[in-house]
Amino acid sequence: MATTLEELNRADEGAFVRAVGEIYEESPWVVERAAARRPFAAVADLVDAMAATVAAATKEEKLALVRAHPDLAGKAARAGKLTYASAAEQGALGLDRLSDQEYDRFEKLNGAYKTRFGFPFVICARRQTRDAILGAFERRLSNDADAELKTALSEIDLIARLRIAQHVKGPGMAKTDGRLSTHVLDTHAGKPAAGVKIELYEIGASAKALLKEAVTNADGRTDEPLVSGEPLRVGIYELRFHVGEYFAKRNANLPQPAFLDVVPVRFAIAEPEGHYHIPLLVTPWSYSTYRGS
Amino acid sequence: MATTLEELNRADEGAFVRAVGEIYEESPWVVERAAARRPFAAVADLVDAMAATVAAATKEEKLALVRAHPDLAGKAARAGKLTYASAAEQGALGLDRLSDQEYDRFEKLNGAYKTRFGFPFVICARRQTRDAILGAFERRLSNDADAELKTALSEIDLIARLRIAQHVKGPGMAKTDGRLSTHVLDTHAGKPAAGVKIELYEIGASAKALLKEAVTNADGRTDEPLVSGEPLRVGIYELRFHVGEYFAKRNANLPQPAFLDVVPVRFAIAEPEGHYHIPLLVTPWSYSTYRGS
Amino acid sequence: MATTLEELNRADEGAFVRAVGEIYEESPWVVERAAARRPFAAVADLVDAMAATVAAATKEEKLALVRAHPDLAGKAARAGKLTYASAAEQGALGLDRLSDQEYDRFEKLNGAYKTRFGFPFVICARRQTRDAILGAFERRLSNDADAELKTALSEIDLIARLRIAQHVKGPGMAKTDGRLSTHVLDTHAGKPAAGVKIELYEIGASAKALLKEAVTNADGRTDEPLVSGEPLRVGIYELRFHVGEYFAKRNANLPQPAFLDVVPVRFAIAEPEGHYHIPLLVTPWSYSTYRGS
Amino acid sequence: MATTLEELNRADEGAFVRAVGEIYEESPWVVERAAARRPFAAVADLVDAMAATVAAATKEEKLALVRAHPDLAGKAARAGKLTYASAAEQGALGLDRLSDQEYDRFEKLNGAYKTRFGFPFVICARRQTRDAILGAFERRLSNDADAELKTALSEIDLIARLRIAQHVKGPGMAKTDGRLSTHVLDTHAGKPAAGVKIELYEIGASAKALLKEAVTNADGRTDEPLVSGEPLRVGIYELRFHVGEYFAKRNANLPQPAFLDVVPVRFAIAEPEGHYHIPLLVTPWSYSTYRGS
Repeated sequence: MATTLEELNRADEGAFVRAVGEIYEESPWVVERAAARRPFAAVADLVDAMAATVAAATKEEKLALVRAHPDLAGKAARAGKLTYASAAEQGALGLDRLSDQEYDRFEKLNGAYKTRFGFPFVICARRQTRDAILGAFERRLSNDADAELKTALSEIDLIARLRIAQHVKGPGMAKTDGRLSTHVLDTHAGKPAAGVKIELYEIGASAKALLKEAVTNADGRTDEPLVSGEPLRVGIYELRFHVGEYFAKRNANLPQPAFLDVVPVRFAIAEPEGHYHIPLLVTPWSYSTYRGS
Repeated sequence: MATTLEELNRADEGAFVRAVGEIYEESPWVVERAAARRPFAAVADLVDAMAATVAAATKEEKLALVRAHPDLAGKAARAGKLTYASAAEQGALGLDRLSDQEYDRFEKLNGAYKTRFGFPFVICARRQTRDAILGAFERRLSNDADAELKTALSEIDLIARLRIAQHVKGPGMAKTDGRLSTHVLDTHAGKPAAGVKIELYEIGASAKALLKEAVTNADGRTDEPLVSGEPLRVGIYELRFHVGEYFAKRNANLPQPAFLDVVPVRFAIAEPEGHYHIPLLVTPWSYSTYRGS
Repeated sequence: MATTLEELNRADEGAFVRAVGEIYEESPWVVERAAARRPFAAVADLVDAMAATVAAATKEEKLALVRAHPDLAGKAARAGKLTYASAAEQGALGLDRLSDQEYDRFEKLNGAYKTRFGFPFVICARRQTRDAILGAFERRLSNDADAELKTALSEIDLIARLRIAQHVKGPGMAKTDGRLSTHVLDTHAGKPAAGVKIELYEIGASAKALLKEAVTNADGRTDEPLVSGEPLRVGIYELRFHVGEYFAKRNANLPQPAFLDVVPVRFAIAEPEGHYHIPLLVTPWSYSTYRGS
Repeated sequence: MATTLEELNRADEGAFVRAVGEIYEESPWVVERAAARRPFAAVADLVDAMAATVAAATKEEKLALVRAHPDLAGKAARAGKLTYASAAEQGALGLDRLSDQEYDRFEKLNGAYKTRFGFPFVICARRQTRDAILGAFERRLSNDADAELKTALSEIDLIARLRIAQHVKGPGMAKTDGRLSTHVLDTHAGKPAAGVKIELYEIGASAKALLKEAVTNADGRTDEPLVSGEPLRVGIYELRFHVGEYFAKRNANLPQPAFLDVVPVRFAIAEPEGHYHIPLLVTPWSYSTYRGS
């Protein structure tokens, strides 16, 4: 599906729809109408034109758009019958291969939601952890119908924005990625702590998942951000800084066992497009951490 | 066995030995010899007199004293055949009711140790977590024989000191207890954080054990120390401060989920008779902790 | 004037007025009326009874009470013609021996204030630094007349409360003192920093005044609070921690000159009866401070 | 004197000496001998070649080189008779326009130094504050003669390196500049503190000199480093962060006066070519600072 903004601007309507028709799940009419708004100077303008098209549609059309979406972690996902885009988005969270127990939980939530609102639960899965989705599911079940339709449409805008960012190359894309980074400062020695092993875990209701391992360089930073180039997933995380090994090599007089060994820093991400810089200032006897910049 | 220093000073030798003969495991000769050193002005002097008696004994006597101790987590413990004091000390760590797998691990260590040194592994169990004992076991297996006899005797001194502290009332006891305390300061509001739930866990190789729950009072402290009146057990611990609930009640503009919810502070205790004061200075976006005083 | 609550309760009205008649500046009628409210179970009740008497007086009486007060730093102070209590209160701030320039500034403020409100500026001098008084003077000049009368009367209550606290011994006195304390924690070594010289300065518009010097003890604290047993004066202060000397004795590898030498911590006191605990957590390369508890 | 490395490599010896002969004070022989080591691939190689030439000279030549330097803050400086380079270096510290009292102090030190060592006191003035020079003067007076000759020659190397960095353009210059920077993080709001006024002072034995004022931008940083592009001068400094104004605009419930207003952070610079990043993490009730990276 990869294409360029320039090609999209030049294409006839049929070619335009073939190129980006899948951006809105099973609803090529959005793209058809947006075609007339060309040319676009920036990719962000294409995003806005499509969102404006949806916003201008009738309530029936909006409901149809929401209903065109598959269940989250539903039968279609299990049976491998999702659109390519949905399959990738749900698959990244493992929603296509849940245990029977987890599947049942989603089935119950999907059923309750559809009974209440008459349309399936839609959420931009690429901006969420699985736990965050379950939390949103339960929270949104208590919305009223109008607020919930609005929420579903705004999630569809987010889905479209990310699909466009991935598939349309060109100038002026809106920001769709976040960044998680850290650095370790040895305030005992007054310099960056080099060689400290860092692990990043997602902390879920179920088992903890190791997302990334890195070791600090001479600047006390990791060579690249812990997460970048994609949205951060809303959820709970834990950084584990292995400072015990670091100080054991430098300080002769530490007790056995040392006061600090693995320092866990647990935090939540609420802004998928945000920058979370979470440093550790540490001595063998103390540490500080904070959301920095 | 509870008695007073004054009674011990006045007793004839037989009564003295009956009163405190069990302080040294199956080895009343230590107490018999120490009887001659009476009267004692302070309980600590009784402790010192007994330790001096052991130090003055022949190597054969010393070895016999070590050999009089039961295996840690051994057959006798399982069969309920320990002395009253040993049963209490080992039982507090659950060493009398290990799973078969854990029992096997101790059996192997006990066997390897006795093969190497010719006497059983002795450690003052009341100053250790189970993980710390296993760590010490493996570390001490690489000692040479003389160093290890010395280590075993010094652990016997510690055992005796604790048994005396528990059973002999009177003035001038040596310090045998440690203290673990905390307080929570809300540096966002510039005052003590009241009503924060705190949990203390022992972090072991196996499952995490909740040792204590408390809630901070108006001074940001717990009404009583988290641990006091006994030695702190060498080991790894985690304090969990439930600051998310606290700030949610006070600050309207926090994101969902909040950046900080449960703040884990993981640390090791190396000095059973030490004072570990571990405060948390916290805002919704940052925290510091340290070994304080 | 020192007396006891018991004596005051037993005295006839004349003796009562002789004993505490000077509590309200040149206005024995307050005390005369309050006499009828005896006996008092607590000193705080005497304070409340007098305040209630003032509150129940006519507006003319209230104005007369305010007008009975001398100018702050005025001619009477310079000439040594104040009541004993006022002389002590103003003298502690040096208001009786100002330079000509300072005297002129107070003269102008006193004049402007009396022109505007028709009564002299009253403030409980024992709860203020000189700079804080000048600040309050200028701020209160923009009050309206009713608010300002109310403010003046509440300052008179504070003056009375402190005079009573000083002169009447007995149970149940209201809290009239504050406390300023500190401690220094060496987070480089993980223990209290002993032997650190600390200076407390008042930071004024004019020269800085050294109020107190102390050296930390083995607990990293000063043997007694830096200020206690009296109200803290509203104002700006600076603590100076001489950590350079401390670390120079303990750490071989510090650069010349060391990164930290004298650490100044500048803060304001706004609550004269508050407890300000202001610790320093420090390594040779970093420090934190906060209003603690 | 500005030239390029390429020109220097191509020049005949006479032109080479004319171009860089003043690098070593009144001692063109250093440059003459170094000419033979051409061509140089990098400016740093030119620096090294000259330093190597000095190192290879006889002791008499070395002494002559040191003696070719003028007194610091001496008669020649007062009379405007220094070489162009020395005039600029001493002038930047105001050493050519001292008060009589300061001049006398330098005169005494210069005299004592020359009496003791037989050559003038040489220091690379561009890497020092005036106070640091006075401190070094007194410290070096207690050196023995050999150590002091070595120190003087190494200062001459530093002077030459800076003169070359300034006058010879070309690839591969050694690092001769340091950097002082800061940033302010509002850990109360969890984001960079924008709009905070910051002042940088040099703290001297005499009056405090304001070196720089800046205001933090949206990232909580200053638009450019507080000092860069030149060596940092060894000395004592104070950053003053005007956080009171910042928080007053954002937080309704602060006391009057606010606990924190101007936060002074006093520190020393010991490495002229170092990077000193000194952040402030601050709430209305607490702050931390440290040498960061």
